[in-house]
Amino acid sequence: MTTATPAKGYAAHSDSSPLELWNFERRAPRPDDVSIEILYCGVCHSDLHFARDDWGMASYPVIPGHEIVGRVTAVGGEVKNHQVGDLVGVGCMVDSCRQCKACNDGLENYCAEGFVMTYGSPDKHDGTLTQGGYSDKVVVSERFVVKMPDGIDLKSAAPILCAGITTYSPLKHYGVKPGHKVGVIGMGGLGHMGVKLAKALGAEVTLFTRSESKKAEAKKQGADHVVISTNDDEMAAVAETYDFMLDTVPVQHDINPYLAALKPDGTHILVGLLEPLEPAVSGANLIFRRRVLAGSLIGGMPETQEVLDFCAENGITCDVEMINIDQINEAWDRMQKGDVKYRFVIDMASLKSA
Amino acid sequence: MTTATPAKGYAAHSDSSPLELWNFERRAPRPDDVSIEILYCGVCHSDLHFARDDWGMASYPVIPGHEIVGRVTAVGGEVKNHQVGDLVGVGCMVDSCRQCKACNDGLENYCAEGFVMTYGSPDKHDGTLTQGGYSDKVVVSERFVVKMPDGIDLKSAAPILCAGITTYSPLKHYGVKPGHKVGVIGMGGLGHMGVKLAKALGAEVTLFTRSESKKAEAKKQGADHVVISTNDDEMAAVAETYDFMLDTVPVQHDINPYLAALKPDGTHILVGLLEPLEPAVSGANLIFRRRVLAGSLIGGMPETQEVLDFCAENGITCDVEMINIDQINEAWDRMQKGDVKYRFVIDMASLKSA
Ligand SMILES: [Zn+2]
Ligand SMILES: [Zn+2]
Ligand SMILES: [Zn+2]
Ligand SMILES: [Zn+2]
Repeated sequence: MTTATPAKGYAAHSDSSPLELWNFERRAPRPDDVSIEILYCGVCHSDLHFARDDWGMASYPVIPGHEIVGRVTAVGGEVKNHQVGDLVGVGCMVDSCRQCKACNDGLENYCAEGFVMTYGSPDKHDGTLTQGGYSDKVVVSERFVVKMPDGIDLKSAAPILCAGITTYSPLKHYGVKPGHKVGVIGMGGLGHMGVKLAKALGAEVTLFTRSESKKAEAKKQGADHVVISTNDDEMAAVAETYDFMLDTVPVQHDINPYLAALKPDGTHILVGLLEPLEPAVSGANLIFRRRVLAGSLIGGMPETQEVLDFCAENGITCDVEMINIDQINEAWDRMQKGDVKYRFVIDMASLKSA
Repeated sequence: MTTATPAKGYAAHSDSSPLELWNFERRAPRPDDVSIEILYCGVCHSDLHFARDDWGMASYPVIPGHEIVGRVTAVGGEVKNHQVGDLVGVGCMVDSCRQCKACNDGLENYCAEGFVMTYGSPDKHDGTLTQGGYSDKVVVSERFVVKMPDGIDLKSAAPILCAGITTYSPLKHYGVKPGHKVGVIGMGGLGHMGVKLAKALGAEVTLFTRSESKKAEAKKQGADHVVISTNDDEMAAVAETYDFMLDTVPVQHDINPYLAALKPDGTHILVGLLEPLEPAVSGANLIFRRRVLAGSLIGGMPETQEVLDFCAENGITCDVEMINIDQINEAWDRMQKGDVKYRFVIDMASLKSA
């Protein structure tokens, strides 16, 4: 018989308390479970929003973290695709209904019942709350475990499990390919991955940013062009230019100027903006040019494996700054100020001595 | 040599004056022009909005009307596809740049330079303002003249040239077919054509209306189901149900409840709402289900011919109420109150004696 195992991680105990060391238990592995020793975990804005209860859905204590890279330490009797010693990843989901149309299509992210989040969701079997990757180990059903491709840099690959798949999935879904002009709005964790991925898919890429200071940086990331979105002349000069606009900005902003920059049949893809779209979207901006406004949320499990493989083949990694676990509260403060290029990743070796 | 010909029609001379008889001239036909004796002309809401300058783009005098059916009386030397005596139609456009990508794709409605409207636009050659179909004759370049299919009822076919193509084009563009569930919002000129066309394309059709009184009527038009959109229980019961929502409502309304009624990957198509989308669209409603919000504007010339042929093959006509030209002001008043099922069509024989 397998039993629950002691584990430790950094948890928030309320919406205002800093993350601190917390001893808890990982569940006794089920037959389809993979037990993983966590090596690295990326730090996503969502981690902070969830823990601070910005979305009104938090439960405590909660260990955040959904960009998990680790090594398999044990597998259940029914596990087929992973072996002890394998390097694996876990992203934003750890379960779903597995029987709806979306799940059958490999789009567990759009599961009719809602997917089980890597942290802060009730487990479908025992009702306990899931706990994330700012910890030393995790137990996850194999369907939600991906393989790290040979040779990929594990540290900088961790954010592909959220920032990478979130930008890759809509680019693939809408068929971005050579000949397309793609605008990427925002130059954070998602945006810089969007630039790299759209380039690797063959598109001509323009980064839209408010700050002149990011021009050189955007070019370094591979953007062919940079448009300062607050400059009306620059925006007017790119009217009706783009096939796709990948909008990674998570706070309210006027999307009408970006719609105007789309060709007829162009598509504006929201991946971060969950709030009401204010200022209001103009119906005319959609109707007069048959434009499309679309949303996209992370990606399904097959596509999560695909983006990892795609990044490995194309030499794409996320730009990361490594931290130790005891630096996490400071890292969150810096992340809120946009003071990171472009993702913090926790070296979980630092938790051993914590 | 051909010369300009005397013509008469009903024109607005200001944003507040009623339509009244006006004598004017139709241009001397050019080599690619088709001269048409107008038999019938549908009465579209746009006619009224334009003449009353609701869109701030009116010029006077203006003869409205862009659902024109008539008979060819003369053709220019370069005209290939039409002959004297042919029954033909003219819709919302009479010219475009003819060389941009959209025009080359047969999407003159999305012409990069903007199309020349059937009334109220400057002609590309002589700069005179175009005048519409509430008149006895019209001269139009053959590219913008469609053939009336054999056996189609000319009176009830007239509105296909605007209401029909406006609803058909997005249904075709997005590939509506058997197995799809389509919601049609609003039961006016556009909506009742949307119901008929979506049914003929094989979809299961639900009409969304605010008024209980339209239930029986919607079923008569072919709707499989009717949902009262102001009834929260009925709306909740159809959450995540539809593949497409065809939104024909031209005034501001909350589209979030309709987005919630779409499946993952479902598409909400705006064909009438040119204003800012208020209440604001929720980004989460798009993102969490990869939903799409799209716009569509009438249709291109090849597709306008296609919808006429499709309607003839499938026995689809617009429900019309015939009027004489001297009833037009009263008809506009009734149209504004929604007191028409579902389109007024002017019998232009009545203009002969005017
Ligand atoms: Zn994330
Ligand atoms: Zn499911
Ligand atoms: Zn019209
Ligand atoms: Zn054109």
